[in-house]
Amino acid sequence: MMSAQITYEQLNALNAKYAKCIDDDRLEAWPEFFLDDCLYKITTADNHRQGLAAGMVYADSRGMLQDRVTALREANVYERQWYRHIVSTPVVVECAQQGVATETAFLVMRVMRGGKTDVFATGKYIDRISVDANGELKFAQRIVVCDSSVVDTLLAIPL
Amino acid sequence: MMSAQITYEQLNALNAKYAKCIDDDRLEAWPEFFLDDCLYKITTADNHRQGLAAGMVYADSRGMLQDRVTALREANVYERQWYRHIVSTPVVVECAQQGVATETAFLVMRVMRGGKTDVFATGKYIDRISVDANGELKFAQRIVVCDSSVVDTLLAIPL
Amino acid sequence: MMSAQITYEQLNALNAKYAKCIDDDRLEAWPEFFLDDCLYKITTADNHRQGLAAGMVYADSRGMLQDRVTALREANVYERQWYRHIVSTPVVVECAQQGVATETAFLVMRVMRGGKTDVFATGKYIDRISVDANGELKFAQRIVVCDSSVVDTLLAIPL
Repeated sequence: MMSAQITYEQLNALNAKYAKCIDDDRLEAWPEFFLDDCLYKITTADNHRQGLAAGMVYADSRGMLQDRVTALREANVYERQWYRHIVSTPVVVECAQQGVATETAFLVMRVMRGGKTDVFATGKYIDRISVDANGELKFAQRIVVCDSSVVDTLLAIPL
Repeated sequence: MMSAQITYEQLNALNAKYAKCIDDDRLEAWPEFFLDDCLYKITTADNHRQGLAAGMVYADSRGMLQDRVTALREANVYERQWYRHIVSTPVVVECAQQGVATETAFLVMRVMRGGKTDVFATGKYIDRISVDANGELKFAQRIVVCDSSVVDTLLAIPL
Repeated sequence: MMSAQITYEQLNALNAKYAKCIDDDRLEAWPEFFLDDCLYKITTADNHRQGLAAGMVYADSRGMLQDRVTALREANVYERQWYRHIVSTPVVVECAQQGVATETAFLVMRVMRGGKTDVFATGKYIDRISVDANGELKFAQRIVVCDSSVVDTLLAIPL
C-alpha cells in the first residue's frame, strides 16, 4: 500500500522517534528529522480551514529550525516543563515516487515542575515524508494543526 | 497471526481512517466503515459487565447509521465542537475465516469553540471486522464501551 | 530492523495485550508478561535522571509481582477505580541476539466510581524484551518512568 521505498512500519518508527527526541529534551537533534529544504509550521484548525498562511511558527529550512532551538535554549531558562507526545498510527493519504503524504493524530501532555499535568495540545500532523540521499526517512513537510485556537503562544517546545 | 485475509497493518489503518473521518467532521462517510448488516452500539463498562442490552446508542444496519448522521446534522446547529480520537493498537482476540475479533483502547478529547479542551471519553472498541465483496475491511460489529458511566448523553458525534 | 526473533508487530501486540490485561482488571495474569527473573520498577523522571535506585515500586522476580497482586486484592476493597492505558508505538533502541531494548510512551487515565476521569500518569516504559523457552515474548525488564514527580503513592494498580 506504500511507495516502493517506504513501509507503514517505517512511518510508525519515524513518528515514535520524533516524539521521543522532543520528550527526552534532545532538541538539538530535532532538526535532523527534516530535509534541508522543508516546511515546518504550527497553526490552528481554524486558520488551516480558512486557508490562512500565517501560523504561530513557520520555518522553511533546516537552518531555521536550528535557529529556533538555539533561541529556545537561550530564552527558556526559568520555568522547567516536560512534555509527553502520544501519537496515533498514520493515515496514508497519498503515495508517489518521491514519498508519501500522511495525516497523524497527536496529543501532547505538559508536566510542570511541581508535578501538575495538563493537556497542552491536540491535533494532527499533515506530513510529506521522503527518503533522503542516505536512505533515511525525513520530513519534507510537517504542518502541525492544533485543534484549539487557544494554544499557549509561548510554545516552549516544538510539537 | 491473522486470518488469511486480514493483516495487523490493515487493522491499524482501518482504525486510523475511522478516527480521521470523524475528527475531520466528514460524518456522511462514517457509515461506509460498516457492513450493511452490522451492530453499532455505545454503552458503558458498567452496563457491559452486567450484560445489559440497552446502550446509549444502538444501530443494527448501515441505514440506521445514516439516519443518525442526518439527525445530528439537523440538530447540532448551535454549539460547535471538535473531537480528537487517539487510538491504541488493537489486541486480536479471535481469528476465523469470516474475519477477526479485536479490542482496541481509545481516548477522545473534545475541543469547545472557545478553545477549552477536555477528556470526552475513554474506553475500548469491541470489534468484529470482515472483508466485504470488494475486498475492503468493514465493521460487522463495533461496540463502544465507555469507561465512565457519566458520558454526555447528548453524544454530539459518533465514537 | 529487529532481532531475528522479534518483529515490530509482535512488540506492538505485546504492549497492547499488557495494557488490556490491566485495564480489564485481570491482574492475576499480569505477572505472566514477565520472565521469572525480571526487573519491574516504577520511578519518576527526576529520580531516573539522577540515577537514584529507589523507585516507588520494585520487584526483581515474577514471584514478587504475584505477591504484589495478592496484596492489592486484599487491600483495595473500598474505592473502586478503573484505568485506561493509551500506549504509543515503541522506539527500538537496541537489538541483540537475546532480545530488544525499547522505549514506549504511555498515558494512563483513571476513572473513578462516580464517573470522574482524570490523567493518572504519563511517562515512558524502558523495556528489555526476550523470547522465552516457549517462543513467547516476555519482559526481562520494564522500568516505568513517570513524568510527574507527584504520582499517587497509593498506586492502586500496576502501570
